[in-house]
Formats: sequence, structure tokens, C-alpha cells
Amino acid sequence: MANPTASMIVIGDEILSGRTRDSNMHHLAKELTKVGIDLREVRVVSDDREAIVSAVTALAAETTHVFTSGGIGPTHDDITADCVAAAFGAHIDIREDAYALLAAHYERQGAEFNTARQRMARIPDGAVLIENPVSIAPGFALENVYVMAGVPAVFEAMVASVLPTLTGGAPLLSQNLRIERGEGEIAGPLAALATEYNDLSIGSYPFQKNGIYGANIVIRGQDGARVDAAMSKLAEMFPA
Amino acid sequence: MANPTASMIVIGDEILSGRTRDSNMHHLAKELTKVGIDLREVRVVSDDREAIVSAVTALAAETTHVFTSGGIGPTHDDITADCVAAAFGAHIDIREDAYALLAAHYERQGAEFNTARQRMARIPDGAVLIENPVSIAPGFALENVYVMAGVPAVFEAMVASVLPTLTGGAPLLSQNLRIERGEGEIAGPLAALATEYNDLSIGSYPFQKNGIYGANIVIRGQDGARVDAAMSKLAEMFPA
Repeated sequence: MANPTASMIVIGDEILSGRTRDSNMHHLAKELTKVGIDLREVRVVSDDREAIVSAVTALAAETTHVFTSGGIGPTHDDITADCVAAAFGAHIDIREDAYALLAAHYERQGAEFNTARQRMARIPDGAVLIENPVSIAPGFALENVYVMAGVPAVFEAMVASVLPTLTGGAPLLSQNLRIERGEGEIAGPLAALATEYNDLSIGSYPFQKNGIYGANIVIRGQDGARVDAAMSKLAEMFPA
Repeated sequence: MANPTASMIVIGDEILSGRTRDSNMHHLAKELTKVGIDLREVRVVSDDREAIVSAVTALAAETTHVFTSGGIGPTHDDITADCVAAAFGAHIDIREDAYALLAAHYERQGAEFNTARQRMARIPDGAVLIENPVSIAPGFALENVYVMAGVPAVFEAMVASVLPTLTGGAPLLSQNLRIERGEGEIAGPLAALATEYNDLSIGSYPFQKNGIYGANIVIRGQDGARVDAAMSKLAEMFPA
């Protein structure tokens, strides 16, 4: 059976301007691979209503799950929650359960629960809250879209809350062979191997470092015996 | 006048599976910001013909320039050149100019210019070659799409060849103020500032590290005097 699929939307001008280097994509990609959910596409979009709504609408229709990162804080540029609600035509306002969580948090801290902070309690009708053990302000899941914070520590904690609730597939097994020859010498035999084992995914990732060049050949599949067989054949073709 | 816009397509299962961490996006984002071209969207797609053609078609219509990274080597999974040709309905085959470059290179190296390596001379009709000083196999520009290699050293060299040929806009000026207060305390006054200076982009990027938390407020715009004025006002609101 085919694995469930996923996509991701990274929201933030700070990534597109080169100010910040995103790390949430790499984290999510690794975690999804472990549980057998295939990440098919990632889109990085700016803090722009039309761009976010359009990405959510497109990807929610194309993949089983959509994960978003960024834009759910208290400031004026945090518009993700409203955009996700709009994409599904859901009503959004301050919701009691989220409000109560935040009110208790700021009371414990002795800090004012002001209008800006109350914005973080804006949750679409019908959404399920995602726990935020780091800084309390929750994410939420609406339909098949999981809305999470952009700060890496919070994003990672939310991913850890969400993933156990999803049905995974067969984990993708992967083996890697490093071959110190030009890809041009590897390509012919490799194409023949890919044709023979067309139930597997066989990728070639060239490297070039300190004058040494070659490629990492990665063989991926759900059937461990098939991956083993293809890898043995590859190793015979290119003895170290 | 509005700046030219750009988008990027990163091609590669190795990024989506979490095996490799992409660095080309961050590099391109920084370089485009320097020359005043606004990066609007990045899509990471798998080594899949339909996914690549569909991303090229969509983004070539939406932004002034499209940059691709990955999938132009000699192996069976390198399908980017064919997909970009297909997106524009262009004929693609081994082209003499690219063939000559590669033939000379492999002759100098004393290596066989075999069928796999000849694949790297597949260039769509009407495309302009992009120089590859690192490993010779060229990229190409077709219409408004710049097709470049995924290996970071080669990608960066190709970006350096291409950018001087493009018309940039007014470089985006940016100033940053680090404020060690919760975003919830900053948000109210910041929203008022954003409304007053609505010709500027004002973003808030929270951080949390070693128990210290706060936000970096970044003010961006093309008019240096306006950015200065907004930043002075922000600094008055939140004295260190």
C-alpha cells in the first residue's frame, strides 16, 4: 500500500530575504521519513495573505497532511492562523480553551495578558489544539493542516506532539554506497540497475571536496530484502 | 518602481527525505537581496517529471526569474533539463556547443566521454548556456528559467555567472534591533509603527536561547531615510 503523503509550507520573509536559514524543513523531513510518511513538496512563501492561502489550498488538496511553520505569534505580521481559516472558509476568533491556557501562563509569569498576546488565542472553529510545552501558545490542526510555530525549539516540540497521532506507513529503508568515481562512469551501470529494480528509488548524489570527487548512491525502498539485493549488486559493480 | 521578482525550485528527493540539508536556497536568497531582486517563493520538489514541469510552469508565469537547483548530472535521475524543455514545449537533444565543451574537458582529463556524460550536453533549443567553471557541464537559461547544478560549489559559481546579466532593482535596505522583551509586549507599539510606516516591511522574529528571550525586529525598505526614521522611532519606544 502506498504511504501517506505530506507537504510543508514555511512562512516567512526572513527566510526568503536570506536573513535566516530555515532548519524546520530538514527536521520535519527526517522525522516524517522515520514514520513512513512521504514528504512530497515544500513551499517557502512570504508573509502575504494571498500567497499563504493559495499554498494551503493547493497542498491540502494534493497531500494527506500539510505542515506549516511560522507566523503564529502575537505581532502584526503573524497572519498564518487567519490565512489557514480563510483557506477552509472557517470562522476564526479568540477561542476559550486557548485563551484559558494563555491567561494561566501569563498569570503564573506575572506578565500582562494584553491584546497582542490574546491574538495567540485566535483559533479557527473546528480546529484541535497542538500542545506547546516550550512557550504555551498552542498550534492547531484544522482539517489536514497542522499549524505550528517557526521558532525551531517550539516547532520541534509540536512535531513531536503531532506525529504520534498520525498513521504512518512502512518506514522507508535506505542504504548508501560512497563511490569515488565520476558520476559519468557510474551512470550507465546505475541506470541498468534502476531499470532492474524499478520498485526501488535509486538516487545519485555527487560530491566534490578537497580534490576528491565521486557520488553517494542511495537505494531506498520499503522491502529490506530488495534493498539489500540491489545494494549487493551495486557493490559488485563498483568494488572499493 | 517595483523590483523584479524571483522564485526558486530545488529539485531533489535527497532534501525531501531529510538525507541532505539544502544550502542553495539560503545562498540564492542572500545574493538576490543584494542586487534588489525579490525572492517570492521557493518550492522543493522530488525527482518526478510531473512535479518539476508543474512547478516550472507555475513559477515561470508568476515571477520575473526562476532559478532551479539540481538534477542536471549524467545519471538516470537527472531529469531537470528535459522537464524544463517540456514546460516550454522546446525540443531538447545533445547540442553541439555543450558537446564540444564537454568533449574537450574529458579529453584533457584522459577520461572516456561516454553516453552518460554526453547526456549533460542535452540542452533545449533556444537556451543560452550558463558557464560552469568548476566541473564544466553547463547549466542553461531558457526563457526566464535558469537551470543550475545542485552541488553547492557549482550552484554558487553559476549564480555568480548569471546575476550580473540580470537587471536588479533598488537593493533592499534592512536594519535590525534586538529587543530582550517578550513579543507580546512589543507587538502593540510595533503594529502602530507598521501602520505609520506602511511603505516599509517590518518583521518580528522571536528568539529563545539559554533562558534569554526576545525578538529581532527587522525594518526593510528601499528608502534609507525612511528606514532610519522608523528605526529611530522603534529605538525610542524600546530603550535598551
